[in-house]
Amino acid sequence: MTALVRIVLIDPSHPGNIGSVARAMKNMALTDLVLVRPRSFPHAEAIALAAGADDILAGARVVTTVAEAIGDCGFVAGTTSRPRSYYWQFMTPRDAAAHVVGLPEENRAALLFGSERYGLATEDLNHCNALVRIPANPEYCSLNLGMAVQLLAYEVFLAREQPRSHTQLELPLAASGELEHFYAHLVEVLGDIDFDDRTGHLMERLRRLFNRAQLDRNELNIMRGILSAVQGRRGQSARR
Amino acid sequence: MTALVRIVLIDPSHPGNIGSVARAMKNMALTDLVLVRPRSFPHAEAIALAAGADDILAGARVVTTVAEAIGDCGFVAGTTSRPRSYYWQFMTPRDAAAHVVGLPEENRAALLFGSERYGLATEDLNHCNALVRIPANPEYCSLNLGMAVQLLAYEVFLAREQPRSHTQLELPLAASGELEHFYAHLVEVLGDIDFDDRTGHLMERLRRLFNRAQLDRNELNIMRGILSAVQGRRGQSARR
Repeated sequence: MTALVRIVLIDPSHPGNIGSVARAMKNMALTDLVLVRPRSFPHAEAIALAAGADDILAGARVVTTVAEAIGDCGFVAGTTSRPRSYYWQFMTPRDAAAHVVGLPEENRAALLFGSERYGLATEDLNHCNALVRIPANPEYCSLNLGMAVQLLAYEVFLAREQPRSHTQLELPLAASGELEHFYAHLVEVLGDIDFDDRTGHLMERLRRLFNRAQLDRNELNIMRGILSAVQGRRGQSARR
Repeated sequence: MTALVRIVLIDPSHPGNIGSVARAMKNMALTDLVLVRPRSFPHAEAIALAAGADDILAGARVVTTVAEAIGDCGFVAGTTSRPRSYYWQFMTPRDAAAHVVGLPEENRAALLFGSERYGLATEDLNHCNALVRIPANPEYCSLNLGMAVQLLAYEVFLAREQPRSHTQLELPLAASGELEHFYAHLVEVLGDIDFDDRTGHLMERLRRLFNRAQLDRNELNIMRGILSAVQGRRGQSARR
């Protein structure tokens, strides 16, 4: 068995697209759909376009933040058609599917899709371990949301049939929600030690670094322990 | 250059699907669309769903027989989800795309898609050199026409481009020697804060974590800065 793969739609505006996504998923044997702030859901048009995949719609979870959507996920990939600056691991759909399928089954993975109009926002990227760009015509890159999900779901389906490279873990990956506690703790400690954030982008940068590393649970505990030790020692020093 | 790849829709009944197909094609840099006996074409809904790929619709050729649609093609593959008896070469979308792209450029290849309701008829198969079956959930195999074209077009695009996963960097990666200074600094700080290494494998573990993350030079400087700030603050606290 392999990791469960969740499809997360952020700010989807057309209910028909949600239905198309459900149909695309079911065709490729994916079932876990989460909707972040859908404009209209449930909706008759979604059911019409789901064409028999209405069980996927019925099981869809609706949440108000990306953090809730992926809190239990150990690996999160954002789909993007825009070039992004900064240091990012870009994966093809094929390689992302192989990676996800290569994770042990106690992990959950999420594929994030931004709104039809704007794609993923910068704050959505803060949750991502890697980015996926669907190869397309450079002169006309306008994939419909349902089509984008279809392509990724297809690659996941294919990768399941023939898994190759795999990630060997001793322990499950740290879940995204646990990482948020670590990041909050890190912010606190950076404040405690008066660390100077000259650019104002320090946390984005550190998040990219640690997200890229894909910490397992033990590593997360070590990092939390180090932060606590920094605080404890500082407390002790101050008390002297 | 490689063979031109034509998309042929036989008896398409919904004009919206023809528009989706045009959009799917243009995203993957395919331009040659032939419609065999479309029920309604041209149609406003096709243009609406083409979403900017209306040049593909405008260039589409409408014919009344499959023979006319593919008369100039050297290789014809029919897409089917049904099992077929008799002797057939079945290809995956990936292998079909590789085959088509591997043909010399003076050839034309066609991918045939049957009607939404019935798929390809037996007489359509008479024109095919091979059949393509899109891998899908055996319990729910109900790909929309546009989605099916999207998947095939994507595979053709990939076969042409073969992009690989890649890492996008802003700055050079930190050199191994620089990382050693960071690790030495980290050991020093862990000592300063009396961090308890219960297992005796703490540094191995932290090295794996940071090595996996592949820090760039700026990230390394930030991490060194944080370590220095921990020490500085400690020094200040201790001096109070």
